[in-house]
Amino acid sequence: MPAYATNMRLKFPILALMLEVVTIVLYALLVVYDTGDAHGDGSHEESNTTHSSGPMTLYPMFQDVHVMIFIGFGFLMTFLKRYGFSSVGINLLLAAFGLQWGLLLQNIWHMHNGKITINIEKCSVLLIMTLLEITTFCINEHLVVGILGVSDVGASMTIHAFGAYFGLAVARVLYRPGLRNGHENDGSVYHSDLFAMIGTVYLWMFWPSFNSAIAEPGDPQLRAVINTYFSLAACALAAYATSSLVEKKGKLDMVHIQNATLAGGVAVGTCADMDIQPFGAMVIGITAGIISTVGFKFLTPILASKLGIQDTCGVHNLHGMPGILGGLAGIVAAALGKKDNVTATYQACGLASSLGFALVGGLITGLIMKIPFWGQPPDQNCFDDSIFWEVPEEEEENEERLTHGESSKNKAEA
Amino acid sequence: MPAYATNMRLKFPILALMLEVVTIVLYALLVVYDTGDAHGDGSHEESNTTHSSGPMTLYPMFQDVHVMIFIGFGFLMTFLKRYGFSSVGINLLLAAFGLQWGLLLQNIWHMHNGKITINIEKCSVLLIMTLLEITTFCINEHLVVGILGVSDVGASMTIHAFGAYFGLAVARVLYRPGLRNGHENDGSVYHSDLFAMIGTVYLWMFWPSFNSAIAEPGDPQLRAVINTYFSLAACALAAYATSSLVEKKGKLDMVHIQNATLAGGVAVGTCADMDIQPFGAMVIGITAGIISTVGFKFLTPILASKLGIQDTCGVHNLHGMPGILGGLAGIVAAALGKKDNVTATYQACGLASSLGFALVGGLITGLIMKIPFWGQPPDQNCFDDSIFWEVPEEEEENEERLTHGESSKNKAEA
Amino acid sequence: MPAYATNMRLKFPILALMLEVVTIVLYALLVVYDTGDAHGDGSHEESNTTHSSGPMTLYPMFQDVHVMIFIGFGFLMTFLKRYGFSSVGINLLLAAFGLQWGLLLQNIWHMHNGKITINIEKCSVLLIMTLLEITTFCINEHLVVGILGVSDVGASMTIHAFGAYFGLAVARVLYRPGLRNGHENDGSVYHSDLFAMIGTVYLWMFWPSFNSAIAEPGDPQLRAVINTYFSLAACALAAYATSSLVEKKGKLDMVHIQNATLAGGVAVGTCADMDIQPFGAMVIGITAGIISTVGFKFLTPILASKLGIQDTCGVHNLHGMPGILGGLAGIVAAALGKKDNVTATYQACGLASSLGFALVGGLITGLIMKIPFWGQPPDQNCFDDSIFWEVPEEEEENEERLTHGESSKNKAEA
Repeated sequence: MPAYATNMRLKFPILALMLEVVTIVLYALLVVYDTGDAHGDGSHEESNTTHSSGPMTLYPMFQDVHVMIFIGFGFLMTFLKRYGFSSVGINLLLAAFGLQWGLLLQNIWHMHNGKITINIEKCSVLLIMTLLEITTFCINEHLVVGILGVSDVGASMTIHAFGAYFGLAVARVLYRPGLRNGHENDGSVYHSDLFAMIGTVYLWMFWPSFNSAIAEPGDPQLRAVINTYFSLAACALAAYATSSLVEKKGKLDMVHIQNATLAGGVAVGTCADMDIQPFGAMVIGITAGIISTVGFKFLTPILASKLGIQDTCGVHNLHGMPGILGGLAGIVAAALGKKDNVTATYQACGLASSLGFALVGGLITGLIMKIPFWGQPPDQNCFDDSIFWEVPEEEEENEERLTHGESSKNKAEA
Repeated sequence: MPAYATNMRLKFPILALMLEVVTIVLYALLVVYDTGDAHGDGSHEESNTTHSSGPMTLYPMFQDVHVMIFIGFGFLMTFLKRYGFSSVGINLLLAAFGLQWGLLLQNIWHMHNGKITINIEKCSVLLIMTLLEITTFCINEHLVVGILGVSDVGASMTIHAFGAYFGLAVARVLYRPGLRNGHENDGSVYHSDLFAMIGTVYLWMFWPSFNSAIAEPGDPQLRAVINTYFSLAACALAAYATSSLVEKKGKLDMVHIQNATLAGGVAVGTCADMDIQPFGAMVIGITAGIISTVGFKFLTPILASKLGIQDTCGVHNLHGMPGILGGLAGIVAAALGKKDNVTATYQACGLASSLGFALVGGLITGLIMKIPFWGQPPDQNCFDDSIFWEVPEEEEENEERLTHGESSKNKAEA
Repeated sequence: MPAYATNMRLKFPILALMLEVVTIVLYALLVVYDTGDAHGDGSHEESNTTHSSGPMTLYPMFQDVHVMIFIGFGFLMTFLKRYGFSSVGINLLLAAFGLQWGLLLQNIWHMHNGKITINIEKCSVLLIMTLLEITTFCINEHLVVGILGVSDVGASMTIHAFGAYFGLAVARVLYRPGLRNGHENDGSVYHSDLFAMIGTVYLWMFWPSFNSAIAEPGDPQLRAVINTYFSLAACALAAYATSSLVEKKGKLDMVHIQNATLAGGVAVGTCADMDIQPFGAMVIGITAGIISTVGFKFLTPILASKLGIQDTCGVHNLHGMPGILGGLAGIVAAALGKKDNVTATYQACGLASSLGFALVGGLITGLIMKIPFWGQPPDQNCFDDSIFWEVPEEEEENEERLTHGESSKNKAEA
């Protein structure tokens, strides 16, 4: 099927190796360790805080965020019955490249004597954006956090809402009418759902680390941990309750549990380090859990049938709506807190900017991806590892044995 | 099947949401961050210790214990072939509620100016009891540790022995004679055993964190880590050896490896922070490993057939007997160590109290659970996710294909 | 089949329990906690560094290395379709014994007042070697690191190259011509590959902890983390690219992704804490990723067919060649850095010593293992858990159902 050009044999390796070589050259020219002697002027405020207690202070939290990215997101998407290799494997590939490239892009305007200094904190920040379209993200994030000074410690707006609507815009452009009635492999099997729960549970556990990793050390960081923790706990209860409420016979749906239990972490992201008190975090969490579960049940089918957006992983329910909720919660918290209305207005601008950049950036990216040069698999091969991976033959073998059995049986019948 | 009323559609969501709303109201009234300024009187001894090195000092250990609770216990019970969703999913639900509710109950009598202050240490302690019947646990634990001042740093008595005999008493009351001859789904398949090993290995690795999390910082904490570590190591060897010894042909049994390797962590819990020396810990570990494996092989069948206690997960072998062993080891360690006989007597009272509260509390809970209102699944639906979960259809599909094959075959035969 | 004597019923339990009892006696005689008062002379340089910031400072990193050993290596080898129990289970057994035994052997010549003192750092170091033949390892490591003073912070030479060539020498002696044409169970199934990816991802994430755990605190440790991180990232890209390049149709091969993505961690081990700059680490990583993938594709089949070395797990590609690459990189880094040529020469001697001890020790071990007393499974039972484990019957059941179907079908046909 040469028209689809999913054969990556030359295109992918050459692209990947070239990118890596370019990256290495840029690192050779620009990047050094942040070992304290690279800048003697004391102007490097963040790293001072860090260094006061040794360069390795942030390391455990840095590792928690790693576990979220590589195990959490990697395994969360293994729920598809024949897409597990791609879920874990492509996640690893993108994260490995993204962390190298992101560190360059994000620090290109903060150089010291023409050098970018690397420390654990920087590595930690950039990890967060490895799964996203990095360039657009960096522009929006620089504008929102860097220039407007908007609070978004757990990145409800700049990562979750941005990423979700970026992706949904891409999905709209790449809509496949041939998959309107579903696909045989767009579903889970028993053990694929259990693999996905490995992802869910790790994300749930380490979300407090994610939301507090770049918070100010001391009380703000403690608040970020505690708020995220209670938002997630309340959200989990709400997700279970809502799942049972909307399903026939009151059963729980694995898709809701795998995803909506995490919405509380997304929604508390913007105001995690603010003084919203534990019960405030729990109100945010319970709202996010309900919205997210209801979205999976009722909104996702409408998005697919009416708007032509096939949201296989429920990005809109886990990141989109809870991200907007987080942005709104940040506006309210800023208005109610000690901060003045100007701050609340800036928060609102941050949310609007994130959504705007996401939709425009996603549409442009989608149009670029539609260029035939890149190769798109035919509809029937979607949701299937075997386009990109060598897959062990067992399943086909079983299939064959069964088919064989049936065919000889048919012979017997004939 | 309305008589059994396992349809949770209204009962469960309403109960869960109501509990969550009540919890949020209580938090709004009672709970604030422990940011150091909530109590200026310096009377808050534990948090002083913690704050001296920053509020986040305990955070990595707090996360280890999370991994044990959510991944470790969650996946340990996925060994059942069709109960994996319930194992991971219901564990997450109970833990998410328990941590919110437990923090209230455990601190209701330690308020400052009418407020409960939250810090990482408190969150850490309460996590430990989320899986247990919280109220009875709190009374016993307050009596044993709070009033009698008994040592139980790793909670051999107050958690493991208490929880095991509580659960076994409940199981006795809920005995199902219809399951006396086993159940088709009361067993594992190859990959469900591997999922369970994820749980085992995480519990094994992080048990030193569990036993040392609330130990005094410094040498006692170091001793708690080292003693737990060597007890587990010796226990693992003993469990493998005993498993091979009691099985036909000397093969290893996955059930023993998944559970008995952990008994050393339970049994060293009470005296983990005492000066028992590594070899003392290893003696405790080897004893626990042998007792636990022998229990799985010989005692569990007797409990089921003679006493009417169906102990599917082997709670008695992993938590019950090793918990008592831990209590006894604590008595001996207190008598032999610098501490006087009075201390040893108090330790013995702690063990007796834990067992007494467990049995009485468990019987009462069992009787409450037997009220028909709650709904109990019929025998044939036990050990099956599909009562409470939407389960992907693949298996039935295979089943059907096979059945279909067989039925057409039968037709062919006819 | 008594000739093969794979029945472990008496031999294994007696051996294991005897070893454990001997170990406990030795611990009772020799081992005490390193609580600071065991040696008042201040001559204990490493533990001073550690104690300056409390005995638990290294604990998070110690736990990361545990996760690598028990989850990482344990699950990495679950890729074989019927060898998952052995992979996780025997790894746990060996590690549990190895950590007890290794601590004795490694510290027997560093006693204080006739006692071995235990702290977290010592436990951490010895974990690393639990999977290896401990005695030979200790002699070589004492010679290379202790006497020659060679740098090998991440142990490219003393663990990876040593372990790989030791194992390959054993494999050469134990060559089974009957398996020359492969074995039905020497392959993966879909979900066994996903289990293996749990191992891969954990190893990938925590390799920076492994390479930096015993580095000097401060800048060298920071460099060890950052260098390992970027070497792994570059290696991952190279492994994906090379895998796609050498496979038909440009598909990715799970075996390459599971293993070759980690070669960068091995290869940067020796010079991880040196001042090689991030781009230097990336050059090492990209080289390791390419060499390792090419080794899997082209070299492993040649080793099997021409040299009689059956390298099921690809040890040569993940540890052997990248370990040598790491040794060479250390020589170059020492020669180019501030250090003189003498240092570079010592590094070269360290590499040569590691390879020499490995090959000789492996050959001797292989010959010992060939003694019929130990019992070897027949060829057809290789790669199969059921020699050593009770395996759930489902598969056979399915088999049976199918066979049953086929046989009745045959009857129908007849």
